[in-house]
Amino acid sequence: MRGVSIVGAGMIRFGKFPSRMIEDMGAEAVIQALRHAGMGHREIQAAFVGNVGQPPNAGQRILDQAGMSGVPVLNHENACSSSSAALRDAYVAVASGEYDRVLVVGAEQMTKKIKGLIPIEDGANLMVDMGMVMPAFFALMARRHMQEYGTTREQLAQVSVKNHRHGALNPYAQYQKEVTLSEVLNSAVIAEPITLLQCTPIGDGAAALVMTTSREARRWTSRPVKVEASVFAAGFSRKEPSVGTIEVCCRAARQTYEIAGIGPEDMDVVELHDCFTAHEILAVEDLGLAPKGEGGRMAVEGTTALGGKIPVNPSGGLLSKGHPLGATGVAQVVELVWQLRGECGKRQVAGAKVALAHNGGGIGPGLELPAMSITILSG
Amino acid sequence: MRGVSIVGAGMIRFGKFPSRMIEDMGAEAVIQALRHAGMGHREIQAAFVGNVGQPPNAGQRILDQAGMSGVPVLNHENACSSSSAALRDAYVAVASGEYDRVLVVGAEQMTKKIKGLIPIEDGANLMVDMGMVMPAFFALMARRHMQEYGTTREQLAQVSVKNHRHGALNPYAQYQKEVTLSEVLNSAVIAEPITLLQCTPIGDGAAALVMTTSREARRWTSRPVKVEASVFAAGFSRKEPSVGTIEVCCRAARQTYEIAGIGPEDMDVVELHDCFTAHEILAVEDLGLAPKGEGGRMAVEGTTALGGKIPVNPSGGLLSKGHPLGATGVAQVVELVWQLRGECGKRQVAGAKVALAHNGGGIGPGLELPAMSITILSG
Repeated sequence: MRGVSIVGAGMIRFGKFPSRMIEDMGAEAVIQALRHAGMGHREIQAAFVGNVGQPPNAGQRILDQAGMSGVPVLNHENACSSSSAALRDAYVAVASGEYDRVLVVGAEQMTKKIKGLIPIEDGANLMVDMGMVMPAFFALMARRHMQEYGTTREQLAQVSVKNHRHGALNPYAQYQKEVTLSEVLNSAVIAEPITLLQCTPIGDGAAALVMTTSREARRWTSRPVKVEASVFAAGFSRKEPSVGTIEVCCRAARQTYEIAGIGPEDMDVVELHDCFTAHEILAVEDLGLAPKGEGGRMAVEGTTALGGKIPVNPSGGLLSKGHPLGATGVAQVVELVWQLRGECGKRQVAGAKVALAHNGGGIGPGLELPAMSITILSG
Repeated sequence: MRGVSIVGAGMIRFGKFPSRMIEDMGAEAVIQALRHAGMGHREIQAAFVGNVGQPPNAGQRILDQAGMSGVPVLNHENACSSSSAALRDAYVAVASGEYDRVLVVGAEQMTKKIKGLIPIEDGANLMVDMGMVMPAFFALMARRHMQEYGTTREQLAQVSVKNHRHGALNPYAQYQKEVTLSEVLNSAVIAEPITLLQCTPIGDGAAALVMTTSREARRWTSRPVKVEASVFAAGFSRKEPSVGTIEVCCRAARQTYEIAGIGPEDMDVVELHDCFTAHEILAVEDLGLAPKGEGGRMAVEGTTALGGKIPVNPSGGLLSKGHPLGATGVAQVVELVWQLRGECGKRQVAGAKVALAHNGGGIGPGLELPAMSITILSG
């Protein structure tokens, strides 16, 4: 298998754009990524596109809008990790020699109209009918973590304070505004202990990457970013009681570190799936960045903040940068490509050489079969 | 790249099953395919699943229902060619060495509730708003073909007569009932010259394949079916005026024949995308099975019927076997695997050694960017 590198990364600012169509947002991200790579669109041989709730052939329409019809497009749907699934198949296609230069795109329009986003048909999932919606699921995970490890409400809230502080430095973030611990704790209770400012918002956005072989990468840029490993793992339903941990994350992380030959201690910067504050604490631990039970303390001590030992979500994460479902996986990698190239301005992690993206899809009620995508990059 | 073969193929009878969920239908097809391969489910390393209109992570839920949670699932959406897109990525993953044994699944539940199936949001596509829905599009193609080549209403209708005659021999077909030329011609006009019995029906169904390396295939069966080529091509929007031909089909066919080193004259049996009778006539010509303009005559002369020179749609095709969107691409290959293994009973094409599957996605108004999947198999 050939080495695979990323030579261009672009995205639009996330936000609420009810008047923008997915074609328009996706095409803008594609054009940004190609411009970043200094690559003409005729070089692209295929596109792998992730998207959750749009009508059929969203990727074809995005590429057409970018003036690129005629390029084969493979659309992927894996809930919140849809574009990480696209990235995974793109990676295999380039590594195998099937294609030399591909686009990986993630895009979602959530504010205008949402189709197909209800996880399970009405009445088909007893848990959901009984109120076990997504915030409730993570609230229960948080409660258990509090009981097992002494994690506090303040530690949970501090994740939101940190990520909003990061997001305030990111011109691509949906919310570029700091919040105080008191504001987070006193915002509306959604599912105790999760408050409003501890939940990722609804939003629209798009992100794109240009991927090629590591051998060809230097033709396009002096700063290619290598994909050291890309793992797409699956959870077991009803077989892994999740008691303050998400088992599939631990397994996927072990597998990714083994393939990359790089461990958690080597990471300089991480983008992870903080759909709710509790998930960042779980993920920091399950990825091996903190000992089990220490995730909350790390947030308070600043270890995971910009300037800390292992900055987590310098982009603002899902909490502040936003989470247009299908766009998220690729947007995480866009941020890390920029970080590894030293292009992140005020939120730059100085000298970052190794980075990890963590993107979960289908974690929670009605979607008990999570897809967990972990990607390790080096610059 | 390694050779790739199919060692198991299974499907459920297509039909209208409003009380069946996609999980249930998909799991039944998966279990049939594994049983056909004589393979235990623990051998499967990943699944590639195609589906159009279901809520997120349909593939994960199907595998869970089959007792196979924990297997990574990559869900694909490419309109009517969704499971052919899944097959394409599965093929690359096995050929490249990424996986040794995978499932390819297609499934759709259309009668119960359809989510996300409307191609374009209301008002977003002027052509659709003005009445250019799918049957209208193919009716215009048919009219043009009639004018250019002298194709007749009777020739169009004969495609339906033939495919229903085939479907009557197929216990997996949604409609197992012959229709007469007069019945077809006198059924309700949907979009002149297309009548009701010339349109594929709404239906539910699922199909699955077990794919492995050609080297490993003989461990599982004495009758493996080799994937000689799998091409997933894209059309150009507004650049290929479709005058009685679908350009992307011609290009994809040329590419597939070149890779396989096998031409149209070598085909023993074909399953193609007869969503409307006119499309079979176009496809027979665009695939090079008939000279341009001869597709209609071939249907009348029996060349494309069982017992003819090149039997097309022995399963009954989309017109009679049915077309549960995401299930279709894999179901076509299931039929061809069974044909190449001589397992098709009354509809068996004697001595079939080489076969072609043709599956289009997004051909028509509002989805002007077709994905065209062509697969050549040998047994």
